[in-house]
Amino acid sequence: MNLENVKFNTDTKLVLNIGDPMGKTNAPRAYNKLFGELDMNAIMLPVEVKKGELPQFMEACKMLHIRYISPTMPHKKDIIPLLDDVDESSRIFQSVNAVRIDEDGTSHGVGMDGKGALNAILSSGVQLVGKEALMLGSGSISGVIGLELSKHGIRKLTILNRTVEKAQEIADILNTHTSMETKALASTPENLDQAAGTAQLFLQVTPLGMAGYGRTHEYLGFVDHLPKDCVVFDVIINPADTPVISAAKARGLKTVPGLKMLAGQMEVIFRFMFGVELTQEDKNACIQELCQFLGVTID
Amino acid sequence: MNLENVKFNTDTKLVLNIGDPMGKTNAPRAYNKLFGELDMNAIMLPVEVKKGELPQFMEACKMLHIRYISPTMPHKKDIIPLLDDVDESSRIFQSVNAVRIDEDGTSHGVGMDGKGALNAILSSGVQLVGKEALMLGSGSISGVIGLELSKHGIRKLTILNRTVEKAQEIADILNTHTSMETKALASTPENLDQAAGTAQLFLQVTPLGMAGYGRTHEYLGFVDHLPKDCVVFDVIINPADTPVISAAKARGLKTVPGLKMLAGQMEVIFRFMFGVELTQEDKNACIQELCQFLGVTID
Repeated sequence: MNLENVKFNTDTKLVLNIGDPMGKTNAPRAYNKLFGELDMNAIMLPVEVKKGELPQFMEACKMLHIRYISPTMPHKKDIIPLLDDVDESSRIFQSVNAVRIDEDGTSHGVGMDGKGALNAILSSGVQLVGKEALMLGSGSISGVIGLELSKHGIRKLTILNRTVEKAQEIADILNTHTSMETKALASTPENLDQAAGTAQLFLQVTPLGMAGYGRTHEYLGFVDHLPKDCVVFDVIINPADTPVISAAKARGLKTVPGLKMLAGQMEVIFRFMFGVELTQEDKNACIQELCQFLGVTID
Repeated sequence: MNLENVKFNTDTKLVLNIGDPMGKTNAPRAYNKLFGELDMNAIMLPVEVKKGELPQFMEACKMLHIRYISPTMPHKKDIIPLLDDVDESSRIFQSVNAVRIDEDGTSHGVGMDGKGALNAILSSGVQLVGKEALMLGSGSISGVIGLELSKHGIRKLTILNRTVEKAQEIADILNTHTSMETKALASTPENLDQAAGTAQLFLQVTPLGMAGYGRTHEYLGFVDHLPKDCVVFDVIINPADTPVISAAKARGLKTVPGLKMLAGQMEVIFRFMFGVELTQEDKNACIQELCQFLGVTID
C-alpha cells in the first residue's frame, strides 16, 4: 500500500482497531486504503486489547490523543458504558463498532453493521418497502440488521435459528421497537423451505461457511424455494462465494456478498468519524483492496 | 514515502516520538524511511506529551503494547527514573533518547546523541586518538559528546561557553569520569582564537545559527586560527551550511554537518531497538530523505 498521504506529524490521525484476537482483522486494510484514496493524513493500526481492559485502554487513548477507535469482538458491547453517547440501535442491541472522541473530550459511539448491510443491499437496486425478509442466524448483528430493515420499510421479517430462543429474543426486541412484523422459528429444513417461498430478501447472518470456521450449513435446499426476484445477502466476507451465495447464483438470483457490507459500513463510518463522504470510486477501491488482501473475487 | 513494508497487523511495531512541542520533529522521517529501506513492519508517529505526563504515558504504552519510544525535549531526563536501566553516559548526563521495552516488561534507555556525533565524525575518516578537541557550547548534549570523545581517545578537550560556569560543570563531570584532560573557558574571541590554534577537531554544539532560532554567532574569526587538518563538526541540522560550516568550508577544512550525526544516531538506535545493522546505503537513503524533507543539501 502506498501511503504518501501519511505526514507523520502531530496532525496525523491515529485510528485504533481493537479486539481480541486481532489476527485476521480486515479493517486496517479498508481504512488505510481509503485514507490513501482521500489523501487523508491518517492511519489505522490494530491493537490487541483483552476483555476487561477497556477502561485502561480509554485512558491510554486520552493520554496519546487518540480520537478514533474501531472496536470489534469482544468490545462492541463493553465499550458502551464508557461512552458519553451511543445511537439508538446500538443501545438497543448493545453493539458499537465506531467511536469518535471530540476535541471537547466527549465520546460518541455508533454501530455500523446494520447500516453497512443495508447500504450493500440497497446498492443492488432492490426495493424494500412493503417486502418480506427471511434471516438465518441470530447472533449479535442480526438485531441491528433487523432494525435497519424495518427503517427501510420491510413489512415482515422471519428469523430462523438453530436455537429458536435466541431468535425469539431478537424478534421480541424488534417487535417492541418497530412496526415490522417479526417472528422467530427453528431453522429446520421444513421451516426454511416454507419461509423461503415468500421471501423477497434472504439474509445469511450465521458464521456457517466462513473460511476457517470449520462448520457449514447442514441444509441448503431452501434456496430452491426462494422466488426468482429474491435478493440473497450473506454477511460472510471470506470466501466471497459462500455456500448460500453459490447456491443462489446457480439459480440466477441476485446476490450481495459480505465484502459489499464492509464497504457499505466504511461509507457511514467515514461520515461519522471524519465528516467525509466516500464516492463510488472510493468504495470500489476499498473493495478491490480487500479482495486482493483476502485473495477473493466478487462480481 | 512509500510504505509497502507496513503490514497493519498486530506485529506492526509502533514507535512513538514524544516531546513538546513536536511541530518540527525530524525523527519520523528518518525512522520511517529506514523502516522502508529495511522492509520492516514498523512505523513511527510523533505524539505531543506534556512535561509531567510521562508516568501516565508509560502506562498507556504498556496498555497499547507500544515497546519503542524516542523521547525528545522535555523528556530526555525525566524518563530516566521510569526505566529499569540506562547506560552509563546517559545516567551521568541525564539524557536518554531511545527506549526499548522488552517482552518481559523491562525497560531500557540509552542516549544516542554522543554516539551519533562520534559516528558522523569518524565517518569523515579523522583519527581521534591522542588529539585535541575544542567544543563551543555546553548544553545538554555537550557532556555526552565529551564522554564519547574520551572513549575514542581524545587527549584534551576545551569547552567554551558564554556562561563559563555551565562549561565548568560539564568539564568537572568529564574530569571525574574520564582520563581526558578537560577544561572550561568563557567563549570570548581571545579564548576562541587561542584554543583554535591547536584544535584538531572543532565541535559547534550551540543552537546558534539554527533556522528559526533567531540568534547567531557574534564572532567567527576563530575559524581562521584552526589548523588546516582540523575537522569541523556542527550539531545543527538545518541549515546544513551553518555559519561555522560555511566559514570552515571557505577555508577548505573538512566539515561534518548535523544531518550526518542524525544518520549516525540511527545506526546505533536501530541496533539497540531492533537488533538491526544499517548499511551505508541505508544511512545514505535516510540522509537523502531528511535533506528532501528539510529542503537542505549537503555534500
